[in-house]
Amino acid sequence: MIITDTLITSFLKTRSDTEEICAPLEIEDYVVQPVVDVSPPKWHLGHTTWFFEEFILSKYDTSYKRFHPEYAYVFNSYYESVGKRVIRTNRGNLSRPTVSSVYEYRDYVTSRLQTFLEGNIDEKIRELVQIGIHHEKQHQELLLTDIKFILGNNPLFPKYNETFTETPASNSKVNYIPIPEGIYEIGYKGRDFCYDNELGVHKVFLEEYEICNVLVSNREYLKFINDNGYQNSLLWHAEAWDWISQNNIKTPLYWHEIDGQFYQYTLQGLKELNLDAPVTHLSYYEAFAFSQWKGQRLPTEFEWEVAQQYFEWGDRWEWTESAYAPYPNYTKAPGALGEYNGKFMVNQKVLRGGSVATPQNHTRPTYRNFFHPHLRWQFTGLRLVKDK
Amino acid sequence: MIITDTLITSFLKTRSDTEEICAPLEIEDYVVQPVVDVSPPKWHLGHTTWFFEEFILSKYDTSYKRFHPEYAYVFNSYYESVGKRVIRTNRGNLSRPTVSSVYEYRDYVTSRLQTFLEGNIDEKIRELVQIGIHHEKQHQELLLTDIKFILGNNPLFPKYNETFTETPASNSKVNYIPIPEGIYEIGYKGRDFCYDNELGVHKVFLEEYEICNVLVSNREYLKFINDNGYQNSLLWHAEAWDWISQNNIKTPLYWHEIDGQFYQYTLQGLKELNLDAPVTHLSYYEAFAFSQWKGQRLPTEFEWEVAQQYFEWGDRWEWTESAYAPYPNYTKAPGALGEYNGKFMVNQKVLRGGSVATPQNHTRPTYRNFFHPHLRWQFTGLRLVKDK
Amino acid sequence: MIITDTLITSFLKTRSDTEEICAPLEIEDYVVQPVVDVSPPKWHLGHTTWFFEEFILSKYDTSYKRFHPEYAYVFNSYYESVGKRVIRTNRGNLSRPTVSSVYEYRDYVTSRLQTFLEGNIDEKIRELVQIGIHHEKQHQELLLTDIKFILGNNPLFPKYNETFTETPASNSKVNYIPIPEGIYEIGYKGRDFCYDNELGVHKVFLEEYEICNVLVSNREYLKFINDNGYQNSLLWHAEAWDWISQNNIKTPLYWHEIDGQFYQYTLQGLKELNLDAPVTHLSYYEAFAFSQWKGQRLPTEFEWEVAQQYFEWGDRWEWTESAYAPYPNYTKAPGALGEYNGKFMVNQKVLRGGSVATPQNHTRPTYRNFFHPHLRWQFTGLRLVKDK
Amino acid sequence: MIITDTLITSFLKTRSDTEEICAPLEIEDYVVQPVVDVSPPKWHLGHTTWFFEEFILSKYDTSYKRFHPEYAYVFNSYYESVGKRVIRTNRGNLSRPTVSSVYEYRDYVTSRLQTFLEGNIDEKIRELVQIGIHHEKQHQELLLTDIKFILGNNPLFPKYNETFTETPASNSKVNYIPIPEGIYEIGYKGRDFCYDNELGVHKVFLEEYEICNVLVSNREYLKFINDNGYQNSLLWHAEAWDWISQNNIKTPLYWHEIDGQFYQYTLQGLKELNLDAPVTHLSYYEAFAFSQWKGQRLPTEFEWEVAQQYFEWGDRWEWTESAYAPYPNYTKAPGALGEYNGKFMVNQKVLRGGSVATPQNHTRPTYRNFFHPHLRWQFTGLRLVKDK
Repeated sequence: MIITDTLITSFLKTRSDTEEICAPLEIEDYVVQPVVDVSPPKWHLGHTTWFFEEFILSKYDTSYKRFHPEYAYVFNSYYESVGKRVIRTNRGNLSRPTVSSVYEYRDYVTSRLQTFLEGNIDEKIRELVQIGIHHEKQHQELLLTDIKFILGNNPLFPKYNETFTETPASNSKVNYIPIPEGIYEIGYKGRDFCYDNELGVHKVFLEEYEICNVLVSNREYLKFINDNGYQNSLLWHAEAWDWISQNNIKTPLYWHEIDGQFYQYTLQGLKELNLDAPVTHLSYYEAFAFSQWKGQRLPTEFEWEVAQQYFEWGDRWEWTESAYAPYPNYTKAPGALGEYNGKFMVNQKVLRGGSVATPQNHTRPTYRNFFHPHLRWQFTGLRLVKDK
Repeated sequence: MIITDTLITSFLKTRSDTEEICAPLEIEDYVVQPVVDVSPPKWHLGHTTWFFEEFILSKYDTSYKRFHPEYAYVFNSYYESVGKRVIRTNRGNLSRPTVSSVYEYRDYVTSRLQTFLEGNIDEKIRELVQIGIHHEKQHQELLLTDIKFILGNNPLFPKYNETFTETPASNSKVNYIPIPEGIYEIGYKGRDFCYDNELGVHKVFLEEYEICNVLVSNREYLKFINDNGYQNSLLWHAEAWDWISQNNIKTPLYWHEIDGQFYQYTLQGLKELNLDAPVTHLSYYEAFAFSQWKGQRLPTEFEWEVAQQYFEWGDRWEWTESAYAPYPNYTKAPGALGEYNGKFMVNQKVLRGGSVATPQNHTRPTYRNFFHPHLRWQFTGLRLVKDK
Repeated sequence: MIITDTLITSFLKTRSDTEEICAPLEIEDYVVQPVVDVSPPKWHLGHTTWFFEEFILSKYDTSYKRFHPEYAYVFNSYYESVGKRVIRTNRGNLSRPTVSSVYEYRDYVTSRLQTFLEGNIDEKIRELVQIGIHHEKQHQELLLTDIKFILGNNPLFPKYNETFTETPASNSKVNYIPIPEGIYEIGYKGRDFCYDNELGVHKVFLEEYEICNVLVSNREYLKFINDNGYQNSLLWHAEAWDWISQNNIKTPLYWHEIDGQFYQYTLQGLKELNLDAPVTHLSYYEAFAFSQWKGQRLPTEFEWEVAQQYFEWGDRWEWTESAYAPYPNYTKAPGALGEYNGKFMVNQKVLRGGSVATPQNHTRPTYRNFFHPHLRWQFTGLRLVKDK
Repeated sequence: MIITDTLITSFLKTRSDTEEICAPLEIEDYVVQPVVDVSPPKWHLGHTTWFFEEFILSKYDTSYKRFHPEYAYVFNSYYESVGKRVIRTNRGNLSRPTVSSVYEYRDYVTSRLQTFLEGNIDEKIRELVQIGIHHEKQHQELLLTDIKFILGNNPLFPKYNETFTETPASNSKVNYIPIPEGIYEIGYKGRDFCYDNELGVHKVFLEEYEICNVLVSNREYLKFINDNGYQNSLLWHAEAWDWISQNNIKTPLYWHEIDGQFYQYTLQGLKELNLDAPVTHLSYYEAFAFSQWKGQRLPTEFEWEVAQQYFEWGDRWEWTESAYAPYPNYTKAPGALGEYNGKFMVNQKVLRGGSVATPQNHTRPTYRNFFHPHLRWQFTGLRLVKDK
């Protein structure tokens, strides 16, 4: 049972948080899409708004009039069952609607939904609003990573702001935590919000293993580079080897070697590489190759979930060895919302944890993030596991 | 001998004309690049500025300090010999420099060049300035056609403004002008500015022909469409047939069939197709296929140049049958400016005339415009020729 | 401990079986490569030979002289660590070596290896030979499926032969076998040959489920087609939907609709679709979509391995929901042979069972076959599972 | 008026000449298509046969029965108006019909056409047969160049035969022949066979020029290479520069640098580069860049035609500066045969002369060969022109 007042507060907070993220941007930054995976910030602003309009207001608020007849076409992301849409590669070609129109659209929907929620609504609608809030929180993280990509690939290396610290301080010593073999329960058991892909609590049997209490650091990763890790085909998957060869990849994303010194682009601009920070912005392929070089491996998502109470996490999304697949008894929601998670359950890897870009309270031990194995623009990292 | 005062006036006028063209734009419109041939308006603003900085100020004004060390990289277009550059497909991925920074860059260079010109400069520099002015005028036309493409491919079909009339009135009756066989002189013989590709006055022998006094109208072109012109492979070049098949092309660019009526996007927004207007925004391939269907042909660029004093022209660039090639005795300028024209003399077709988007005094009877045969975003049209 | 006499017999039998498969071919059939996944038959003949030459004769038989200095380059498949190779897409561009030269190469290596094995060799070499035999058996199946593709995509639809029966008779009634929840052991425990990817016996916990005793039939699959299964986006993964849209896929591979009747190409030529036969040559994507339409699902590879003793299998490779990943404690062989399995453990799905094209004794309950989810040219099928 | 007896003799000679060219091939060599421009030899054998079947026998011999109902589909090249066809990139994927079936098809059509011609036929059919003969002669040259490509790109570098001499001896001293300005007649004026693209005799005015009596040699071309001609962007067209960069082109086709010495693949196998031989297998782009480096230029096709009586030619096809375009008054044949030449008149360059691979009597001073500017697998060369 969701309490309406709390819901409205949470809704309004989420809406303003999103806008807060965009506050440092120039109008031009809202528009571009340098690669297909990175959407223009104004698209995120519109899309999260459309979600409330499409799935709640236009369906349940009989007095609702759409802000603009074409916006559903412009801001639908991938919901095949609710009509045609601008194809993903075209988002960066649209100069209109303008940023200011998109903010008007936001205000209109925020205000209309607030009014609607203050009326007499039933639990089903409260649940949809909650999904919409969490959907928008996911896009808050994407906003930050997409902004980083847009600015970090610009030859002028503009800063996002002066205050966003990508690497919180950490003093932990390296240590491997032993986990005994046994049957463990996996999946979300709480009563708060979670995504459908975390449901279906079920048992798994795990063999004995040891998991590292800290993430791999830049210092460690540099050893791998200096030991010609990127040149040794035996460490890599076949598809990974093709990928690094075709894209001439020799370091994680955002690294720049200038006069023999490595720098990395951060939201605070270009900085000397911090050797003590966790290695970041690497693909699953690189995480796997590094683990091979160390003679260790990545955890499965189950091993991670079981062990996570014994170590700190939340600064980087941690690649796991697990392919993204449905849990036993997984059932997707009927209709368009069923497209939210299930249809991506092939060819992607699960990441666990959270990152410095994840909104507060938006992750949990059972949260399953997922990306294709070659993608690097999220705040990704890696944690090692040893078999006994 | 170029008079300095006139030159400065012309320079300042050209600079402000360019900015005038952009006045109706939103900031977002300056940024996007929906296809590779269409550059972001802010790139045009910066590139025309860089041209003066690179080829004049940084070379001849010893006191000149570049506005920004990276702008040469950002705003070089295709001059291989003056250093690396953002590849053309990436121009729309750059949110920075901002539009306002680009205007500052313009003001800086305009003002610095004005000061420099007011000093004691020699003829060579005056000539370079003149080239820069004409270069910028070319980009004025590209700005208009690129803006049309950016707005015309947006699902919201925004207007550029209310006043830009694409089709001046015309009352001419269709008539074929006979031109006798003979030796004619081709190429620029005047004393004012022209491009190097117009030089090398030379004689050509032309057989007798008849050329139409008006351009083909939308009304005529619709007959071709309704007679299944786009479905009859015998009318088309082999490469054209592949092109229309792969791109599903059935009308000129910017045509939209809505409820059985054709509309066309214009700079004043979406309008009903004007049947009396010249057919516009078609490729050489379509112009050629139409001429085949009529049992006639396109003029060569020489036939056009010889006949042009007998008819009105200047509303549409007219596709000719001539491939773009050097005139006898063509010599390109030494160094980077030699890259201006000569290196495009393969695989392109010559267009003659001018268009509603051409700046005043920027075309002449000997002017040779050129584009690849499949391109349609310029204000192109076609004129027919009959052999005797 | 492998007995040498048995090994030699097995080796010679395998070599002649491979050649038996090619007996019905015309020389031209040995040469072509219609798509990247399908290799020319002569390449399979050479590659399986090169495997024995590269990993055994050239390393351990000091008197061995390579048959031809360039053949290692021509016939290496994907072993990055043993030198450069003809890239995979180029295999069908090589008219030389001729088929008859490849058979000479086979005879040379077969005879030299036989002689070598009759000498005093140690267990390590016997193991390598055994791997080579199993490697060649894998290619026997690929030979049959590649030949089917080569002939089945030819507009003349030539037969392979008259006798190869793709669908053995079966009379089983449909029945769902219940499997109780519990801990089960997975992986190969025997003492005979198996691949490294089957090793690492380990426990898994399975929830209760019911698995069908028979494969889905063409009759059932036609219902899915007729119910517009290929047009309903909600049944498909996002990548699957793109795949069927881009490739215009509306049936399994080798189906042809002629005058309202479905036919399928078989190794005996084009035949009317046998409604009682298992649906074959479908991708994981299609298998998954069908299961969604039925409200059921595919088994995991563990569920399949546990249940397989209760049903018949071996006519079709059965898609599972499991991504191909290493078992706990998986360790790959050192050096080039370590490239055999491990480097493919990403982005592929496990298939279990075997097919009418699998050589005798070449599969077993723990055997893990794997292919990308869109591939269809193997003899693939699907089996359904219901959750309780 | 064509004499039937001569025609039959010529027809039979042409048919057997084609087969003679293929005599040194292995069956496998007939099948492959390493790049889209190179067709499998068996396709040439079938296609030249289909031409006689499609345009003569099936239309005018009422008793004629097609050899096989599917062969029209398999062997049509690009005639859009006579039905569907195997797309060009797929020719190398067809193992059937076998080489021996294709020869049976040839024998059948040759014999049926001979019989038909011995009957009472009218002039129109004799003309079609003559076109078919010349069509087949064109394919004889393509057969040789395609065979060279197939063998020359094989890592084993097999020889075609021992006797085919690519470079006839020549002792000419370098000399520039002056041609005075004037009006010249262009086009075929004889009474024998020529292609439609040579017709339309017309006058052109030429400025004064000097043309070299010999082709550029390998020795000269090596100086260009050693002077970093391939690294100097100012010498190249923009599209050429992209082409050499993307394809990493640093020499003409078939050149191999081994231990500091250049070799070239010839139909007699790999040979040391003959410095006195004309540079061969270069693209228009390379020919143009070389001429720029020399401070000279390529002739137009008109300059070549006018000057050709003053020098020897026929060993290499000579790139001209002329784009392939229709002559004044060009009219293409009605129906499918109209597709023969006209539809290629865009984006291609004219080559004049002939080559060591050209069948006897198959070229003449007015013959217009044409290829895209980047293609190199024909026996191409270049001749320089100086302006006065």
